Amino acid sequence: MAKITHVSPLAPAGFPDLPVIAGAEFSALAAGVKYQGRKDVTLMRLAPGSTVAGVFTRSATRSANVLDCQAKIGADSDAGAAFIVNSGNSNAFTGRAGEGSVAAICDAVAEATGLPAARVFTSSTGVIGERLPHERITAKVNDLVAALSPAALDDAAQAIMTTDTFAKGATAEVVIDGQPVKIAGIAKGSGMIAPDMATMLVYIFTDAVIARGALQAMLSELTDLTFNNITVDSDTSTSDTLLMAATGASGVAVTQDSGTFREALHGVMLDLAHQVVRDGEGATKFVEVAVTGAASDADARTHALAIANSPLVKTAVAGEDPNWGRVVAAIGKSGAAADRDLLSIRFGDVLVAEKGWVAESYREEDGAAYMKNPELVIGVDLGLGDGAAQVWTCDLTHGYITINADYRS
Amino acid sequence: MAKITHVSPLAPAGFPDLPVIAGAEFSALAAGVKYQGRKDVTLMRLAPGSTVAGVFTRSATRSANVLDCQAKIGADSDAGAAFIVNSGNSNAFTGRAGEGSVAAICDAVAEATGLPAARVFTSSTGVIGERLPHERITAKVNDLVAALSPAALDDAAQAIMTTDTFAKGATAEVVIDGQPVKIAGIAKGSGMIAPDMATMLVYIFTDAVIARGALQAMLSELTDLTFNNITVDSDTSTSDTLLMAATGASGVAVTQDSGTFREALHGVMLDLAHQVVRDGEGATKFVEVAVTGAASDADARTHALAIANSPLVKTAVAGEDPNWGRVVAAIGKSGAAADRDLLSIRFGDVLVAEKGWVAESYREEDGAAYMKNPELVIGVDLGLGDGAAQVWTCDLTHGYITINADYRS
Repeated sequence: MAKITHVSPLAPAGFPDLPVIAGAEFSALAAGVKYQGRKDVTLMRLAPGSTVAGVFTRSATRSANVLDCQAKIGADSDAGAAFIVNSGNSNAFTGRAGEGSVAAICDAVAEATGLPAARVFTSSTGVIGERLPHERITAKVNDLVAALSPAALDDAAQAIMTTDTFAKGATAEVVIDGQPVKIAGIAKGSGMIAPDMATMLVYIFTDAVIARGALQAMLSELTDLTFNNITVDSDTSTSDTLLMAATGASGVAVTQDSGTFREALHGVMLDLAHQVVRDGEGATKFVEVAVTGAASDADARTHALAIANSPLVKTAVAGEDPNWGRVVAAIGKSGAAADRDLLSIRFGDVLVAEKGWVAESYREEDGAAYMKNPELVIGVDLGLGDGAAQVWTCDLTHGYITINADYRS
Repeated sequence: MAKITHVSPLAPAGFPDLPVIAGAEFSALAAGVKYQGRKDVTLMRLAPGSTVAGVFTRSATRSANVLDCQAKIGADSDAGAAFIVNSGNSNAFTGRAGEGSVAAICDAVAEATGLPAARVFTSSTGVIGERLPHERITAKVNDLVAALSPAALDDAAQAIMTTDTFAKGATAEVVIDGQPVKIAGIAKGSGMIAPDMATMLVYIFTDAVIARGALQAMLSELTDLTFNNITVDSDTSTSDTLLMAATGASGVAVTQDSGTFREALHGVMLDLAHQVVRDGEGATKFVEVAVTGAASDADARTHALAIANSPLVKTAVAGEDPNWGRVVAAIGKSGAAADRDLLSIRFGDVLVAEKGWVAESYREEDGAAYMKNPELVIGVDLGLGDGAAQVWTCDLTHGYITINADYRS
């Protein structure tokens, strides 16, 4: 693992002021799971009555933690809940021992909090295939419970980091029926996803009153517009986990149809998703790929991901090269419908190609000047229908190679 | 385009001695399409009675040349045929003008050779989206015809190169019914495929007598075991073309069921395919991914390509890091069936992981020592069925970034 010595040039100016979400408490401590001298375990406790929803990686080799969360997430309960997260070891591909580690942690948290073990959700992030020294975590559970505070979500954001170069948080407040409702979330991740050191974890909290089913439906739907539309390197983690809890402490009821709440939650999730891309390993450019005019939304997403995952597009962006031919090639290989003579390509506002060829108005120097921006939009219109999608990615640089080609230990 | 100043460290010791294939003639000249001071146009003429088959990119934005070849390839004809190839410009995404360029070249070759234009097959490779200055090619057609020689296939191998660091050729001779039959082929390509400068082109010739349908069936089937199972960077060209001609000059009849001929052709195609990988942009390691025990051959190929295309696996190989966790993650994301507790992973003969965890016998120093080899085999057994596949790739290095992130012009 190359030592990260500086913060991503695409990082936000600072970590946001996260509000207290009544009914949610947080603590973080150094347990020495792998890293020394930094907080690496965090506990999040939700008050009785909280509803919990989650979205998880579809990897066939997902971790014992993910499998355990998935088994528990669909149950209704008024007992409250706890999330416990460690960094430094992903507990993935650790055989039956991995399942034992999850059980040991859940039991310890259950005993210390009085919660049923079925309401304890665990996440682990870090190296794959090494036994999780869960006894280092269980030894700290009582201390974690004692340290719980409504104001420590920023500590949690620090403790879940692995190769991240900055902590990631986002928040929103909306007024529903004259009452304020708050949302606050944290995330980690700097590859999408460098599976041995940088899986993506996201935890979001609100004080709204939302039924579990409605929360799950909204979270799943918005994940498809946010976290499922970011890519750093096309690699998928064995540990990706998004958990959201609604404590209900505001007393404000929100249904699945609440546009105001949905929009605010969408904003928080998109902000966190973009921060993960901004911390992409080696990233120097933040790129939105916006596809319109596709035969369907699914086709639009297929095209957008083909462009965003193309090593040749990503290296062209790194080189500030307006190499629209590589965009054409990515569209061609995606497998989704395209017609050479109907598609158009824009770099920002610069029309680059249309009608099956370079645009008459296009001047190479305009494209080259545009590519010097740190934030870019590659726009593609297929001219076929109403399908649209947005995907966010970063460039592929020497930094990515340096981070990932260096020896692991 | 970064200047290529040295030959790939994975290159074969030298270019093979290609035999004369009676009925096939070749010439190559400098036409200045883009490159100056080197041969960049090649003509290949096949005698009357030759059969021709082809396999082409499935890209939705494939070049005018590919579309024209596809329209012509299925026709029977005794007239003979010609292949004409230029490097430096791919004539892809050049709108209606691209079709005009193809027609102009075909007409010029038809006039100079007496062939019908329907028997002239063109390929162009190089930058996308710039008008092909076809007049520079047509101006050389008479000279190309005058220079045709049965012994100039090696010249052709040179003339079709773009970012290739070495010319690629392969040959085989087999005895069928007591008579010798020869096969000789050339290829270009150093990304799979860097679409703006390094599409893959392959031309294979034999003196066997083979019906067009049988030749096409054999070529398509063997492509799925060779050229369709190599990947440098997961990017697909708009120009990939494989053309094969059987001149029949040996008088030896070969059917689709001829195991001897099929095996020899398979060997030539695999050799050329491996040479393309060995010339992968920035490559320092040649990697075979061998998957067995999958639920089906298709599943095996899906897993193998997921591993071979994973930037994290490829950077680990570059760093000589036996990071089998990344192999696990690639299997998990592939979408094909896998069971954590049944799969096993080997680096060469070193058993790395089995039964859902690191193998008891595995020592990290054994894995690390193995990874220092320039040629590696990553073996995966799924433990599910009889499905198997082999895929070949190279590592992802700073060299790839340097070649592709530099400014195009």
